[in-house]
Amino acid sequence: MRFDIISVLPDLLSSPFAHSILQRAQSKGIAQIHIHNLRDYANNKHKSVDDYPYGGGSGMVMSIEPFAACIEKLQAERSYDEVIFMTPDGETLNQTIANNLSTKENIIILCGHYKGIDQRIRDIFVTKEISIGDYVLSGGELPAAVLVDAVTRLIPGVLNDETSALSDSFQGDLLDAPVFTRPAEWRGHKVPDVLLSGHEAKINEWRHDEALKRTQTRRPDLLK
Amino acid sequence: MRFDIISVLPDLLSSPFAHSILQRAQSKGIAQIHIHNLRDYANNKHKSVDDYPYGGGSGMVMSIEPFAACIEKLQAERSYDEVIFMTPDGETLNQTIANNLSTKENIIILCGHYKGIDQRIRDIFVTKEISIGDYVLSGGELPAAVLVDAVTRLIPGVLNDETSALSDSFQGDLLDAPVFTRPAEWRGHKVPDVLLSGHEAKINEWRHDEALKRTQTRRPDLLK
Repeated sequence: MRFDIISVLPDLLSSPFAHSILQRAQSKGIAQIHIHNLRDYANNKHKSVDDYPYGGGSGMVMSIEPFAACIEKLQAERSYDEVIFMTPDGETLNQTIANNLSTKENIIILCGHYKGIDQRIRDIFVTKEISIGDYVLSGGELPAAVLVDAVTRLIPGVLNDETSALSDSFQGDLLDAPVFTRPAEWRGHKVPDVLLSGHEAKINEWRHDEALKRTQTRRPDLLK
Repeated sequence: MRFDIISVLPDLLSSPFAHSILQRAQSKGIAQIHIHNLRDYANNKHKSVDDYPYGGGSGMVMSIEPFAACIEKLQAERSYDEVIFMTPDGETLNQTIANNLSTKENIIILCGHYKGIDQRIRDIFVTKEISIGDYVLSGGELPAAVLVDAVTRLIPGVLNDETSALSDSFQGDLLDAPVFTRPAEWRGHKVPDVLLSGHEAKINEWRHDEALKRTQTRRPDLLK
């Protein structure tokens, strides 16, 4: 799977993609992540990628031409399943969207900044708008990294058994049960006896009960 | 405001904090972001920070001691308003939570990995559990970066007028209206006439109508 991320701050994304599962997915050849500097596609001598909004108001608006030039260059090289714009007014990312995107081959991701991007980029080029949640961030770079991480770990072959995605929260209907590791007692705080019992059926029952209890308390909406 | 982030992959976080608004907030002295390598607090010769889960099952669990040692060292140096654990089963981050946290002075953020962290860390040390959304990521580092970004940009003095947080989506009840910049016509796609009219009252009315329309279509839940 190939991701092409278009950003005005490409260096911001260097470290998240160089570690952990995203690094492994790339070195295994399962994922390719290409980051494009939007300024390289500016057609003016100041390499400016934004301008004042029509109609006035605070904040700058990202111009149509640099995004168009970069997207069209990429689309001339290969076909893309989606051109995704990360924006707080997009569809809220969830595990179903991540699962669906993990079956795609080529995806372009646009990172916005400032007051937003020219609406015509969204109307003409963008096929999907995704928000990672109801909060405002400085730009689309961290959301792009979050999306790539959520999607990449679902591609077959990326995770090993140790980190299996199948038993993660949100893959089923329940949150995870509490987990414990050694020591069995720490400053008087003990691990629940059942987990030390070696009785597999009882352990599974306890885990299911705790997962249900936690889901009922924290996220009753997931049980509907 | 000071953030202390405890992570097993501190290098993953280097680039997001070195750019844009987070970099400016730090160079202005408004925000301090300290990243602590959890392995430095491991008390065994292999610098191991995880172990097998009690009761069996796939995945490793992060041990209590290294987190406890790092948190207690920090808490001996200054008092903290919150010890936040980034976890998919936490309270979902929204702009209200970000606003609230932006008034705090010192915050510790724990990044989980693998199958989770020993429940006793959560019971004993953690004061707040936050999720950035209903999807599974490789670890708590990107969520920590998202949280720090969402909170830091709200601290007075971080943003200038150009990037004013006050008119952002989610600060009011409506999503933003579409924005446009030059050129007024691009390959036949025109900017709405009203934005070129210079008639401020009509422009404001158009923006309000468009914001309302977009919110009704995309996020009717925000209007309730």
